[in-house]
Amino acid sequence: MPITVDGPVEVPPGLRNVVVTTTELGDVRGREGFYHYRQYPAIELARTKTLEDVWFLFLEGRLPDEAERTRFAAELAPLRVMPDELRDVLPAIARAGARFAPLPGLRTALSLIAAVRGLPPLWDADPARRKADAMLVCAVTPTILAALYRLRAGDAVLEPREDLSAAANWLYLVTGEKPTSATVAALEPYLIATIDHGFNASTFTARVVASTGADVVSAISAAIGAFSGPLHGGAPDRALAALDEIGSPDRIDDWVRAKITSGDRIMGFGHAVYRTEDPRSVLLRDIAVGLGGELGEFATTVERRVVDLLAELKPGRELYANVEFYAGVVMELCGLPRSMFTPTFAVSRVIGWSANILEQAADSKMIRPAARYVGPPPQVR
Amino acid sequence: MPITVDGPVEVPPGLRNVVVTTTELGDVRGREGFYHYRQYPAIELARTKTLEDVWFLFLEGRLPDEAERTRFAAELAPLRVMPDELRDVLPAIARAGARFAPLPGLRTALSLIAAVRGLPPLWDADPARRKADAMLVCAVTPTILAALYRLRAGDAVLEPREDLSAAANWLYLVTGEKPTSATVAALEPYLIATIDHGFNASTFTARVVASTGADVVSAISAAIGAFSGPLHGGAPDRALAALDEIGSPDRIDDWVRAKITSGDRIMGFGHAVYRTEDPRSVLLRDIAVGLGGELGEFATTVERRVVDLLAELKPGRELYANVEFYAGVVMELCGLPRSMFTPTFAVSRVIGWSANILEQAADSKMIRPAARYVGPPPQVR
Repeated sequence: MPITVDGPVEVPPGLRNVVVTTTELGDVRGREGFYHYRQYPAIELARTKTLEDVWFLFLEGRLPDEAERTRFAAELAPLRVMPDELRDVLPAIARAGARFAPLPGLRTALSLIAAVRGLPPLWDADPARRKADAMLVCAVTPTILAALYRLRAGDAVLEPREDLSAAANWLYLVTGEKPTSATVAALEPYLIATIDHGFNASTFTARVVASTGADVVSAISAAIGAFSGPLHGGAPDRALAALDEIGSPDRIDDWVRAKITSGDRIMGFGHAVYRTEDPRSVLLRDIAVGLGGELGEFATTVERRVVDLLAELKPGRELYANVEFYAGVVMELCGLPRSMFTPTFAVSRVIGWSANILEQAADSKMIRPAARYVGPPPQVR
Repeated sequence: MPITVDGPVEVPPGLRNVVVTTTELGDVRGREGFYHYRQYPAIELARTKTLEDVWFLFLEGRLPDEAERTRFAAELAPLRVMPDELRDVLPAIARAGARFAPLPGLRTALSLIAAVRGLPPLWDADPARRKADAMLVCAVTPTILAALYRLRAGDAVLEPREDLSAAANWLYLVTGEKPTSATVAALEPYLIATIDHGFNASTFTARVVASTGADVVSAISAAIGAFSGPLHGGAPDRALAALDEIGSPDRIDDWVRAKITSGDRIMGFGHAVYRTEDPRSVLLRDIAVGLGGELGEFATTVERRVVDLLAELKPGRELYANVEFYAGVVMELCGLPRSMFTPTFAVSRVIGWSANILEQAADSKMIRPAARYVGPPPQVR
């Protein structure tokens, strides 16, 4: 239903369902509980491919063959190395402050790289340069985040290992130990499944900034800010904290009823787009249970009961477990510390942001909406 | 024309004329060549009030009385002082890199403050805390930008002076000299007139990030990124560079025709919203001419001729001088170096961003649009 009127157009609040632009990157079908990256179902990619394969898919529009896979890995390896300009400032960022703030720390570090190197605006850069800048940001993000964590903990910062994949490298850089193949096999699908997911607020922010022709880091820094917002969701540690609070199966009902009575949200349930099971939650439930142990079992018990209670207490709302709910369980079982759950999400999502930025950069139309003034009328003399 | 359909809604490209939300901060009337801040015509405020008065208006919804004016100035003074956490990192930012990049430098510095202090999300902060964080960012922005400039030039960084107004202080911090009252009287209206201007891309970016409940610095950092985009406009040095290129009145026609033939934009002309004279351009032309000298005269000659030529060569486009055109002339005549023209714009615009962030924070609806997938259909197995 294209609108052709010349005057201001009013749309649903929060731009809900408002089609801002076209994309070839993927789509989320809320009623079907299905999403895809380019022409592939995302969950199928998560179950069968490597993070690098899907990263390549986002950049090139197709999965790599063996030679391309090797070349892509070789291109990424040097980009992971900590830039010299960060070596002095990261300890100051990591150690200061009462709270450990890895996302503002990441934004500061990326912004410093841009300030020092003078990144070209997307508007002035050719597609190869744009892609190179985007690959640098994605490759260096885990290095920066892990360094912030280890500096905060008082541990030595580790150098990325060329013999490890992107997923394995992330686990190594944070924990200091080469991960088992079972651990990588648990975390890698999570990383793949969270690369991209429609025009969520951080992705949209990245595209608005890219639409002005600004540089890649300006757009990524902006996305990190939106990503840090509590309403954006994507804080897997909160759902795990809820499991801790509940503690045992017999306490589920009281806990949920108390939350709903006091008007609180149940962390890990409900989604802006899905009206059925979140396919990411289904994937992560399988992985969590597959890892064995009490936590995965307890989480599935809680999930089943919370979904039933929500259907009873909030009829018609169609609330299901979202990506957050099992993500925390999987990361905990992979040995990641809780303060690094959201940063882990950022490690994959930055790939999606950068693909959106590159796509937006090919469109020369700036995103500039309007607002309706509702204050007192101006006093014109 | 509110739209009530349930499915995806398609709107004009770039969200042009799409009303995203309501605002009490002001409005731009493109056909009338008029804009206002709350209930006051912006140009009238620019001609008669101080920057602090209008800053207060944005925060409180009314102009201050004498006691409020004194109290507001006293609140701002300590917020201008360079934060300790920046003293070591600013020299590294300023001196590195081939190009001087004050906006990425500002973003890095503000982001560092947020990382070190752990700013609370808007979602968790009460209105007083939100306002305090916003005032800090606005007050410290000129201090940071001027320090970056002086460090880059190899000059000593100056401390803000409590006896100077915000406008005078900015000129002092950059140039190292207490400005004359005539200089302040020329620059202050520019600063006031550029605080806010509808839902331009940077302001919209700030509001999208604020709508996620993220902290003030996340939203301002994002806005700085959008602001740095070449398509956003607002680079007053480019219009002045065009005047230099033209050089003399007899070269205007050839220069304009050559630009248009090669498909280039004429910097300083045309605006996304105005279809008549930009009222900011009218204000700044008066100021530029009032300062006396050849540059102002030459600029008015160029303006008149370019407007005529554009009417002839691009009929029906209604292209007039925009805020950029005379802004560079005024700043040049005020003794500001060209690399600090866009930063001067940022010094005032940050006040508008922060007012928009505070307004958005009062609305709990996240801005999350949609996109239409146009790639190959997914292969579901």
